[in-house]
Amino acid sequence: MKIECNLELDENLARTLSESVAPCEIVRGPNRSLTPDIEIAFGQPEIAIIDKLDGLRWIHLTSAGYTRYDTPEFRATAARRGLALTNSSSVYASPCAEHLFAFMLAQSRRLPEALRTRVAGGTPEWNRLRGLSTSLAGEQVVMLGLGAIALRLIELLAPFQMRIVGLRRKRIGNEPVPVITPPELPAALATAGHVINILPDNAGSRNFVDAKFFNSMKRGAVFYNIGRGATVVQEALADALRRGQLAAAWLDVTDPEPLPPGHPLLSAPNCFITPHTGGGHRNEAETLVRHFLDNFYRYQDGLPFLGRVM
Amino acid sequence: MKIECNLELDENLARTLSESVAPCEIVRGPNRSLTPDIEIAFGQPEIAIIDKLDGLRWIHLTSAGYTRYDTPEFRATAARRGLALTNSSSVYASPCAEHLFAFMLAQSRRLPEALRTRVAGGTPEWNRLRGLSTSLAGEQVVMLGLGAIALRLIELLAPFQMRIVGLRRKRIGNEPVPVITPPELPAALATAGHVINILPDNAGSRNFVDAKFFNSMKRGAVFYNIGRGATVVQEALADALRRGQLAAAWLDVTDPEPLPPGHPLLSAPNCFITPHTGGGHRNEAETLVRHFLDNFYRYQDGLPFLGRVM
Repeated sequence: MKIECNLELDENLARTLSESVAPCEIVRGPNRSLTPDIEIAFGQPEIAIIDKLDGLRWIHLTSAGYTRYDTPEFRATAARRGLALTNSSSVYASPCAEHLFAFMLAQSRRLPEALRTRVAGGTPEWNRLRGLSTSLAGEQVVMLGLGAIALRLIELLAPFQMRIVGLRRKRIGNEPVPVITPPELPAALATAGHVINILPDNAGSRNFVDAKFFNSMKRGAVFYNIGRGATVVQEALADALRRGQLAAAWLDVTDPEPLPPGHPLLSAPNCFITPHTGGGHRNEAETLVRHFLDNFYRYQDGLPFLGRVM
Repeated sequence: MKIECNLELDENLARTLSESVAPCEIVRGPNRSLTPDIEIAFGQPEIAIIDKLDGLRWIHLTSAGYTRYDTPEFRATAARRGLALTNSSSVYASPCAEHLFAFMLAQSRRLPEALRTRVAGGTPEWNRLRGLSTSLAGEQVVMLGLGAIALRLIELLAPFQMRIVGLRRKRIGNEPVPVITPPELPAALATAGHVINILPDNAGSRNFVDAKFFNSMKRGAVFYNIGRGATVVQEALADALRRGQLAAAWLDVTDPEPLPPGHPLLSAPNCFITPHTGGGHRNEAETLVRHFLDNFYRYQDGLPFLGRVM
């Protein structure tokens, strides 16, 4: 059995991977031969090679997103061939949740403004800035999506006793917070101070957050995005910021990334953008390999996969 | 019985205060008459007026700090006259803890750099920034001081399962984290990634954090200060940042505030300063009044004060 891998690894990590899967063989590099004994693809395999790998049984992605596999054609192929698709969302869940949490606290403590303000205590400017600074405790939150990032964020926010609801297409029943479904969304948006977008990019989510959505939000609320840029109508977001309908937006994802010069979001007031660094963390490659190996042993033992999306 | 008050309040809040203490009378303004029936001073009373108020029994400060009362002379006077001194540290504990938490997450997610970086995924600059971004989970923390702010911060950090120790002159026994005493400090500093200064300003704490302290810290650790600026030898801090001994410093307090132009901390690398806005929050005046009233009712009922410091 062979494993095709196109994840870039340093020498140590490549050796760890090879030794951990032995006697299976890791097939790497541009001149690798795509033979029928390749059963597993690990990394970001091109859709095209899948047709060439008749023996392929399982694809393990190093990303959380799997948009390009999320097509009717691929789903049909996967179902016909009994091909499993797993992702690495759990690897990114905690760093992404912490990144979003950093956004929330930076906003509530007004860090961007405070870090460039040098004023003496008691001055009007000081009183204004101090009065704008707030506590997250007890505030209302709407989360769009209740996946791994949301679940970790809910854990992290617990000591703040925020009032959190999560949007899902339908309730599963095991959610740690009250669930709302799309018809209940406008009412929830009308009272929440924080709206957190964690939607993946797919046909159902694209442009989900539009002008109507922003107008349903409480005036002066804050919008955060750690999901995917394509789920937001960005011109509508820039407009909502310019009108003061939103107090601020904190985005780790945009469409495209980075935004081109002159994009309306770049000049919108109180729009704070990080370049999709939310999932990053020291030892990221090592964590990805460890997560793959967890699933590899499960595969060998016939146990259910972690993070199976198809 | 009368209450002297020099806290600035809007009309509504002034009325709430007056109505809540009735039939006691609130004495306000520069032309207030300082009569022997003033039993309580609420706000930031000048030390000088205390001698004029023979009937004074209790001073309730609107600040957490009480440095100017913390003298042998004032302590002797207070003891002789049976004068109680209470502070409002509990009003600021949660916003200060959240402010410090915002610092920690902004540092671990590299927000200052990420917010000014526009790069595409996969580029070397992106990989570098993403690799620098970290998780707080499991990291080691030393807290200098275990007062109200530290206790709230410990609550907030709980989901991160950080390994926290707190410095106290001596153990009391009710601490929620392991306590270290000054002789044990260097060993703790040698391994901690985060050192959080929450010391008040008094004779024992002034210049406590000096060059020797910074040199005892693990190279590349981060220093935070939400206590008082005078507890730190600021030239030593600037030097530690310039030498890369510290990766960053996040300060809400300096000495003086603001720092004068040309101060070494203003040009030190990775030194992030907010202008003592840590305790600020919406409805701050209202919270201060509510906290005073809690204590006022305790005073009337002969119950122990909240936040008694003398």
